[in-house]
Amino acid sequence: MVVGGDAAGMSAASQARRMKGPGELEIVAFERGHFASFSACGIPYWVGGDVPGRDALIARTPEEHRARDIDLRMRTEVTEIDVDGGRVRSRDLESGAEEWTPYDDLVIATGARPLRPDLPGIDAPGVHGVQTLDDGQALLDTLAATPGRRAVVVGAGYIGVEMAEAMINRGYEVTVVNRGAEPMATLDPDMGRLVHRAMEGMGITMVNDAEVTELLTGDDGRVRAVVTKDAEYPADVVVLGMGVVPETALAKAAGLPLGGHGGLLTDRAMRVRGHENVWAGGDCVEVLDLVSGSERHIPLGTHANKHGQVIGANVGGGYATFPGVVGTAVSKVCELEIARTGLREKDAHRAGLRFEAVTIESTSRAGYYPDAAPMTVKMLAERRTGRLLGVQIVGREGAGKRVDVAAVALTAGMTVEQMTSLDLGYAPPFSPVWDPVLVAARKAVAAVRSRQG
Amino acid sequence: MVVGGDAAGMSAASQARRMKGPGELEIVAFERGHFASFSACGIPYWVGGDVPGRDALIARTPEEHRARDIDLRMRTEVTEIDVDGGRVRSRDLESGAEEWTPYDDLVIATGARPLRPDLPGIDAPGVHGVQTLDDGQALLDTLAATPGRRAVVVGAGYIGVEMAEAMINRGYEVTVVNRGAEPMATLDPDMGRLVHRAMEGMGITMVNDAEVTELLTGDDGRVRAVVTKDAEYPADVVVLGMGVVPETALAKAAGLPLGGHGGLLTDRAMRVRGHENVWAGGDCVEVLDLVSGSERHIPLGTHANKHGQVIGANVGGGYATFPGVVGTAVSKVCELEIARTGLREKDAHRAGLRFEAVTIESTSRAGYYPDAAPMTVKMLAERRTGRLLGVQIVGREGAGKRVDVAAVALTAGMTVEQMTSLDLGYAPPFSPVWDPVLVAARKAVAAVRSRQG
Repeated sequence: MVVGGDAAGMSAASQARRMKGPGELEIVAFERGHFASFSACGIPYWVGGDVPGRDALIARTPEEHRARDIDLRMRTEVTEIDVDGGRVRSRDLESGAEEWTPYDDLVIATGARPLRPDLPGIDAPGVHGVQTLDDGQALLDTLAATPGRRAVVVGAGYIGVEMAEAMINRGYEVTVVNRGAEPMATLDPDMGRLVHRAMEGMGITMVNDAEVTELLTGDDGRVRAVVTKDAEYPADVVVLGMGVVPETALAKAAGLPLGGHGGLLTDRAMRVRGHENVWAGGDCVEVLDLVSGSERHIPLGTHANKHGQVIGANVGGGYATFPGVVGTAVSKVCELEIARTGLREKDAHRAGLRFEAVTIESTSRAGYYPDAAPMTVKMLAERRTGRLLGVQIVGREGAGKRVDVAAVALTAGMTVEQMTSLDLGYAPPFSPVWDPVLVAARKAVAAVRSRQG
Repeated sequence: MVVGGDAAGMSAASQARRMKGPGELEIVAFERGHFASFSACGIPYWVGGDVPGRDALIARTPEEHRARDIDLRMRTEVTEIDVDGGRVRSRDLESGAEEWTPYDDLVIATGARPLRPDLPGIDAPGVHGVQTLDDGQALLDTLAATPGRRAVVVGAGYIGVEMAEAMINRGYEVTVVNRGAEPMATLDPDMGRLVHRAMEGMGITMVNDAEVTELLTGDDGRVRAVVTKDAEYPADVVVLGMGVVPETALAKAAGLPLGGHGGLLTDRAMRVRGHENVWAGGDCVEVLDLVSGSERHIPLGTHANKHGQVIGANVGGGYATFPGVVGTAVSKVCELEIARTGLREKDAHRAGLRFEAVTIESTSRAGYYPDAAPMTVKMLAERRTGRLLGVQIVGREGAGKRVDVAAVALTAGMTVEQMTSLDLGYAPPFSPVWDPVLVAARKAVAAVRSRQG
């Protein structure tokens, strides 16, 4: 039995079905929304017009799941989990009918919910989240009905910067109101500052250190401005991208173990700790950060898919594990590519690690090759051991996916000295003769060596 | 003392200079050509018109080297190495004057020389190699003087396909005459076939299994056709890209140890085996293949630079090593990107390894994102252990550099099962939710698992 019909839940169901036929395993999945298996990560590109329509974001329809003998019950919300009794209570959101259904194995994949602080005006027409396909459609309907000029995006994380791009693409004047010192708090502030400058270069107004206190509405009841302690930003439409938290109210009520970030805690097989037949994956769980050794909450479709795969294999009688993450993320805002993996400076401090941090400038291709695009690479290496701790990259085309090299090196526990010898692909259209990641590694080696003690 | 003033030699000189000042270390470098420190890899892009001029390919001029207290003697050929006497004999190619110069440490960086079989007509006007900047200029002069229509490229390795692109860009009808069964013999034939088809799609005539026997000349003495056993291909210009071999005649005459590919053999510090004060790097050495455990000859600027760095550090009183390669290479022909790392099927057989080979199709971006470009990934994994052995990628934009993930995984000795959990960057503009490399790894895991025994 699966609670939550998106990436983690339906991957688990599909993988289990691949391993066991309908005669061997019955699969029921509950989804309270109108859609299953959709790409939430794609919503900004749909809103921005890069993706033609909503259906492109649907990986698999409910009918396709049902054709594979998965009893997917849409618009059906699970309202209670009875772990001791091995059953869940669900409510049909159309008819209101409730029932208890027993399970042998339970998969919790309830996802995350967007932060939406209880501010005056936050529920006014014209204020939109972008978590679900319904949210995306509502925002598009607003844009079509109110061809305004000014959009304010609240939050400057991945969703915030992606939505800033989307609104620019829709022809809006965009202001991003950000609580932090620089956009992209998943980067160190010095790298976030590069994002800040680039966004300003794109014509986006970036307001940092700004906490929203209120949203003002006009005579028609629609939002007309975003208010912070210091200023007021006129808005025809407001997009909220203030982050998400694990959706674990059900799990908490059922007495299942939650971590410091509010996510479910699992073992390596994605089994909820202490519960032989309860599994969890996706945005509702915490994952082990292999670099710091602590748990983190990283809502990301690619992890959710991997979790689902692992759960499905285990429930289907096989064996698979999810060893953890190194914290890789990549994003873009217009032409600017932003990537990170491993620890930021403050993560390393928090983990008790001492380190050297170096930053280099390089290009995506040989300097003499056309369209060689600049990029900045920051690298952290542990003192004494020289172990790679993290990499952040901000640049133009070809910058973002270079972070993958560092992600693999982190997973393998490589030192920056070992990285300097990495045999990375070289040809003038693809890289300078020293790949930017290797240039950073060389500088990190020098920094680690020069430090006494 | 450095013999050969290109990537490896001058990197060694520069690194040694960074470590020891002119009062501590005297550096003499001999270069027989007209240029030092140039990017041979860039020549096809200069000929093709992507790179504006020859000077863009010169990383550092002789004057710049001399300004850093490196006594670089241009147009001066070393004609003999006296290892026992610790001296080299050189000839000034302008004056013809010869002299012996003593050394404490010798760095051999004599590079590679292009294969140029002794065929009738091969020295006719209109037949060009592309090894040096002089070669490139001569070819450009020919193209300017004889605005012909038909170019024949002999050879379909990296240089061959890059020169095919260059000649297409110059407006020629291009025929590639290739000895092998498919172009890009550094790939397995099934992957080479994809390159073959794509090149045909670009309007390049691809002739495989064709050994050149003769080049015909016209009444003016210029080349007019390339002849194979089966056919004759009219040509206004012929470009030779038949591969290179280590330029080690001097080293051989000096009694230094050569390997099975004709390259110098070194230890991990790039010291010539058995010789405390003789070092060698770049295209004249053989390198250890970390996957097969055997030596290979891989002429590539990025390795030459690393070798030079290591030699310079060691000669300068520091310590550095070059552990070996995994055989990564990336190239493109027009929009097609071609990449490989590790072992091909025949390399694995030769190394005594049994393996599973899988091939998958995926895209560079989420399928619904604009410009998601197709790519084919082939992966080899060792039987039983599941250790990654090699990856080949053929695709469009965004395909080539994905091979780096596999290069790092190979270096770390990862299994394909471990690879399935790699935390690679995901966002719709950068990757499908399962990166193509991970899709291949999953299929490889299944292949290894399903094989009995």
